[in-house]
Amino acid sequence: MSIRMYDLAGADPALRFSPYCWRTRMALKHKQLEFEALPWRFTDTATIAPYYAESPARVPVLTDGEVAVTDSWNIAEYLEEAYPGQPSLFDGGAGKRHARFLKHWTETTLHLPITRMVVLDIHDHLHEKDRAYFRASREQRLGMTLEEAVADRAATRTAFARTLAPMRHVVKEQPFLSGEAPAYGDYVVFGAFQWARTISAFDIVAADDPVGAWRERMLGLFDGYAAGFPAA
Amino acid sequence: MSIRMYDLAGADPALRFSPYCWRTRMALKHKQLEFEALPWRFTDTATIAPYYAESPARVPVLTDGEVAVTDSWNIAEYLEEAYPGQPSLFDGGAGKRHARFLKHWTETTLHLPITRMVVLDIHDHLHEKDRAYFRASREQRLGMTLEEAVADRAATRTAFARTLAPMRHVVKEQPFLSGEAPAYGDYVVFGAFQWARTISAFDIVAADDPVGAWRERMLGLFDGYAAGFPAA
Repeated sequence: MSIRMYDLAGADPALRFSPYCWRTRMALKHKQLEFEALPWRFTDTATIAPYYAESPARVPVLTDGEVAVTDSWNIAEYLEEAYPGQPSLFDGGAGKRHARFLKHWTETTLHLPITRMVVLDIHDHLHEKDRAYFRASREQRLGMTLEEAVADRAATRTAFARTLAPMRHVVKEQPFLSGEAPAYGDYVVFGAFQWARTISAFDIVAADDPVGAWRERMLGLFDGYAAGFPAA
Repeated sequence: MSIRMYDLAGADPALRFSPYCWRTRMALKHKQLEFEALPWRFTDTATIAPYYAESPARVPVLTDGEVAVTDSWNIAEYLEEAYPGQPSLFDGGAGKRHARFLKHWTETTLHLPITRMVVLDIHDHLHEKDRAYFRASREQRLGMTLEEAVADRAATRTAFARTLAPMRHVVKEQPFLSGEAPAYGDYVVFGAFQWARTISAFDIVAADDPVGAWRERMLGLFDGYAAGFPAA
């Protein structure tokens, strides 16, 4: 087993919740590659610093024998090129551009409202050594306390449901964002949903939302791989 | 010349501003097909009713010899299938799914804020016979008068700029949403921008926004085809 990834973990090392690391996990499963996901905490900067020329050092970091790759998008491109005989993550250039739009859409429109639903749960599930760093950095970014950020999660969920509109239309027309079968664009978006699911008991999707049915399809992939992880 | 489309026009028949018709215009240019775009007004329902089994009858409607196709998406699919030897609108299945996401993204997130910037200008440029219908139907949809809808366009533009975030990231990385060259996904999004540009002197994009540079690239396609149309 030569592929390893550093993967954000909670106090419980079985709790793996990074949206970016979930993209890489699903990409590795899609490529039918064996790998080991090593638990890493926010304050374990020294562990992965050698892979970065400058700070901040972030996960995922993937090593494949002598090769090391940082950043989930770079990792997906690496896997696609290094393992061309395995199922394609992008389905060619047009699919890659689709995935790239979905990446930016996810990061610019989904991550902030999800943060405002689950950030306190993240804090509460972190290893003790990570909590002060996490609270300080996230409160500075949000401009409010973690408790204030999640004070009205029901309202945030209502606004979030509107943000999901383009995706909702698509997954009513076809099973996956990438079409009849999932590809990397689905994994990018799924990373955001799995982040929330693994760390918080608050469901960010209403029970009757077609997006929830897509999430169920994603959870069922690879013999229920993502569904098998501990959910908060 | 066997291809014709019914195309929404203002009081001045040279004023062509429908976002959906612009998708079809650009698709026809991309396919290097000759066509005639017949001016049509909102209240000319009888003209296109024969093409619809049920109301409401809408433009674009495209006729190609004996074939008639309604709905801009259906028209794009028709052109792609009927003219396979001409440049592809979708670049295969993955590109088609990308365009489909962009269509839903455009319709669910861009059209409403643009309406709230230009709807009164649309009204003022319509043929006299269309104005009462337009005001009544749009005021009902918006839940306010046209004047109220556009009362704070600067604030709407600021919010709209945030909505454009995923697109902005992409067009900073590559010239078109579809990659190095434009394809149907670009035309879908461009339809929304050209709608505003042809009907209103209010620029919906800030001068330094990279989205504006993309719009310039789109206006310059096909020897400046879209740039050559009257702008309000």
